[in-house]
Amino acid sequence: MDELDFNTGFSLTSPLPYVLVTSVDDEGRPNVMGASWVTRISFEPFLMAVSIGHGRYSNGLIKSCKEFVICYPSAEQEKSAMYCGTHSGRREDKFAQTGLAASPSKKVRPPTVGECTAAFECKLVQAHEVGDHTLFVGEVVAVTGNPARSKHVFATTGKAPLSLDQKGNL
Amino acid sequence: MDELDFNTGFSLTSPLPYVLVTSVDDEGRPNVMGASWVTRISFEPFLMAVSIGHGRYSNGLIKSCKEFVICYPSAEQEKSAMYCGTHSGRREDKFAQTGLAASPSKKVRPPTVGECTAAFECKLVQAHEVGDHTLFVGEVVAVTGNPARSKHVFATTGKAPLSLDQKGNL
Repeated sequence: MDELDFNTGFSLTSPLPYVLVTSVDDEGRPNVMGASWVTRISFEPFLMAVSIGHGRYSNGLIKSCKEFVICYPSAEQEKSAMYCGTHSGRREDKFAQTGLAASPSKKVRPPTVGECTAAFECKLVQAHEVGDHTLFVGEVVAVTGNPARSKHVFATTGKAPLSLDQKGNL
Repeated sequence: MDELDFNTGFSLTSPLPYVLVTSVDDEGRPNVMGASWVTRISFEPFLMAVSIGHGRYSNGLIKSCKEFVICYPSAEQEKSAMYCGTHSGRREDKFAQTGLAASPSKKVRPPTVGECTAAFECKLVQAHEVGDHTLFVGEVVAVTGNPARSKHVFATTGKAPLSLDQKGNL
């Protein structure tokens, strides 16, 4: 085993599943960001966790609205999904820019990305500060999807997946 | 978007990266388990998180030894890696059973799975109880690997990846 620098090690473990995370601001305006640091963490209750950089616009939105939706984009949505991972909702409406639909969710205020493969509606139950990110733990309260669109998007880069810099800032 | 049961939604979001997590008991005997609920969570410091069921033998070992190694098995190791995800170290020495090598790590006591694609040596910095699992947060203190073996194993099942039951028990 060779000793590797951190980024080489991380590149070797790509690709990762790539998701779109939605939230809303205090006026109910929706936002959507790209993320790859996401996993399921409990069967019962059904919990998922997503790690979001301190500098990200969505970080503050989720802390405030305490709800989010983890959407797995379909292969057809790849280009739009990547756009959401490289642009900030502080400066633009990414739903409008990409044409992705902000469809009403079943049980939370943040929207579901229409026509995605699968979407997990989450209520925030824990938030842990971990280094330069916050690890948001959500209880899944509804699941929707399009089983015909089972091929979802993987991020194939390793170093800083779909971020503009290493700090997770956009 | 159709409303889906949780397991259908989870199946739609597979495959997931599949890793081997090593630990040691109080006498220094190594153990290795399979896990798919793992992700990087911070750039600086370099933190990773892995969620391990309360019933798993490794759960107690990691709480006690406070170190672990996250190893991404190579494609050549797939059969042995799957064995480690479906058998318990409470009852057998899985290194001996599979022939996987327990190679010395650089900076922690738990071994590295020899000839794996990439290995992340972690010191435990946080542990959070999340439903029926514990989410272990580790600071990565060394990375080793074999860049030539970049094709690592993905778990293709969705419902209960590589577990013998839904509770994460073996």
